Amino acid sequence: MSGLEYQEGRTELNELGEFALIERLTDGFEPRRPNTIKGVGDDCAVTGAGKVKTLISMNSLAEGVDFDMMYTPLKHLGYKAVAVAISNIAAMNGTPTHIEVGVSVSNRYSVEALEELYAGIRLCCERYDVDLVGGNIGSSRSGMVLTVTAIGEADEGKITYRNGAKCHDLICVSGDLGSAYSGLLVLEREKVTYQANPNFQPDLDSYDYVLERFLKPEPRIDIVKVLDEKGVVPTSMIDVSDGLASELLHICKESECGCEVYEERIPIDYQTTRVCSEMSNNMLPVSNALNGGGDYELLFTIDQKDYEKVKDMEGVHIIGHITEKGAPAVMVTPQNSTITLVAQGFRER
Amino acid sequence: MSGLEYQEGRTELNELGEFALIERLTDGFEPRRPNTIKGVGDDCAVTGAGKVKTLISMNSLAEGVDFDMMYTPLKHLGYKAVAVAISNIAAMNGTPTHIEVGVSVSNRYSVEALEELYAGIRLCCERYDVDLVGGNIGSSRSGMVLTVTAIGEADEGKITYRNGAKCHDLICVSGDLGSAYSGLLVLEREKVTYQANPNFQPDLDSYDYVLERFLKPEPRIDIVKVLDEKGVVPTSMIDVSDGLASELLHICKESECGCEVYEERIPIDYQTTRVCSEMSNNMLPVSNALNGGGDYELLFTIDQKDYEKVKDMEGVHIIGHITEKGAPAVMVTPQNSTITLVAQGFRER
Repeated sequence: MSGLEYQEGRTELNELGEFALIERLTDGFEPRRPNTIKGVGDDCAVTGAGKVKTLISMNSLAEGVDFDMMYTPLKHLGYKAVAVAISNIAAMNGTPTHIEVGVSVSNRYSVEALEELYAGIRLCCERYDVDLVGGNIGSSRSGMVLTVTAIGEADEGKITYRNGAKCHDLICVSGDLGSAYSGLLVLEREKVTYQANPNFQPDLDSYDYVLERFLKPEPRIDIVKVLDEKGVVPTSMIDVSDGLASELLHICKESECGCEVYEERIPIDYQTTRVCSEMSNNMLPVSNALNGGGDYELLFTIDQKDYEKVKDMEGVHIIGHITEKGAPAVMVTPQNSTITLVAQGFRER
Repeated sequence: MSGLEYQEGRTELNELGEFALIERLTDGFEPRRPNTIKGVGDDCAVTGAGKVKTLISMNSLAEGVDFDMMYTPLKHLGYKAVAVAISNIAAMNGTPTHIEVGVSVSNRYSVEALEELYAGIRLCCERYDVDLVGGNIGSSRSGMVLTVTAIGEADEGKITYRNGAKCHDLICVSGDLGSAYSGLLVLEREKVTYQANPNFQPDLDSYDYVLERFLKPEPRIDIVKVLDEKGVVPTSMIDVSDGLASELLHICKESECGCEVYEERIPIDYQTTRVCSEMSNNMLPVSNALNGGGDYELLFTIDQKDYEKVKDMEGVHIIGHITEKGAPAVMVTPQNSTITLVAQGFRER
């Protein structure tokens, strides 16, 4: 009978990064079907025989890891689970069309609690014109795991992968970065205070922006639409789920290039800066942007010829450019020093 | 802050059946997109604008609920997770083409353990010519939840729903029923013995068939192919995941009809019968077939005109017929008495 814990030669999950783990596990899974355009290794899989391709992506949120029921309203959680999944469709320059939702849940949750969850799922579906078409609900021994599969579509010629960036392309990012992680920091701080004194009433009003960014992020479908209206197809794209540094490194690795981004160009909201200044370890706002994650903004590269079309796009910031093959991925500070970007490991967030 | 456990007017999850719960939660989710052919409520969702439609289905297996690590080899588990998901594609008379796999896993599992899991996933993919194209791996606080989304395709005119059965159609089932549940009963019995005496070595050789049926079921893609070769499109179809009674009731409800199946026609393997006779509560083999579940055989109805084509199909049994609207769903015993079929509730299996 089984003895999972006592294997000899055991490699712990956290010894590998998440992406190295996926690579190791899916090594040898070669696509066999002619209509598999892209398998493992981008924001979505791409399949289909016609001109309009099908995009598929799956994302899970686990209680105690990705969300904490102490401060996560279930309606927000449902909304976020959908938003995160369809953000991957946006990251391929596609349009989300359908989702399936899988819920594994313990009997600690009531029917009414699940109704709240589904109210959030519904709100996000309606907002982004996506149909919920199936899924499953089952028991779990403890906690909740919420998995959303998103299906979308895109014209073959408009799909953007991570591997299309080329030297001199401009690096763009939507919205601002680091705010979602700042929201998480505030919630964690208030949780500690509350646990020490349950009569404590947290005053969260002045953190509304960063809290919403963490609890209820929006997928940037709007950016995909505006790019399409302007006739711009990015050369590469990814969504910022793990922090700017990690996403830039993905693009550089897949596109076989380096990059240079300028610290003062990285968009950071005022509330993010304020939260960092309040933290006892005197955190740098740019660290939240580089490593925080959870922003679900779009990071993309464009050919220089598209500069005029993109430079005044609302909510889009040009933060640097792609450099040649073999060059490192770096951030240039206002003092003109150069910091090499490093990916974080498999975090239990 | 949250207090999940202390809600007033709380409805427990087990007060509703699984299907009633899904209905309640997805009530009000109306399809908005013209290419959504079928949303929630069948084995798969059906989407797409062309003649060849896309089928989508999602299934989760949770540790401690759907599988027990005491007696589940990880390779078998990976195989089963894929088999169960693509069985839903078969149940729509479709061909599975792609899967995505989501794994939420605690640090109790090693990289090597996950490699075993993925070896099983790969084996099933290769056997059924399915491409793994993505998914995600994340931490969970305890145990493992394994979610597989299966994508498939089918010609519009060949898709079989649950709602197409009509009066006088013949009811067919593939393989045999109740064997998977018998396998589970054997494993649970041996587990209890082992826990009482860890030096005990279970002798499982003579249960090989029922154990394999439970631990490593096969989706009946072969039946879909033979039906196609014979030019038979079933009028309705479903896979037997929850037991024959529950599946027959689904078809009757969706097709607005009754049914009559004959006890002596229900295919039951010799090992299933033997396991039942060994159990202390003197279980009836037909109870395992009706209520056991986990067989992943195909239950389908055909027009009488197709009788000649189906009657000699290997591994297909004609077990009864559909009756008129308003008639009950019943099983007729060899003694010619009539037993009304009832569905089981939301089980924690």
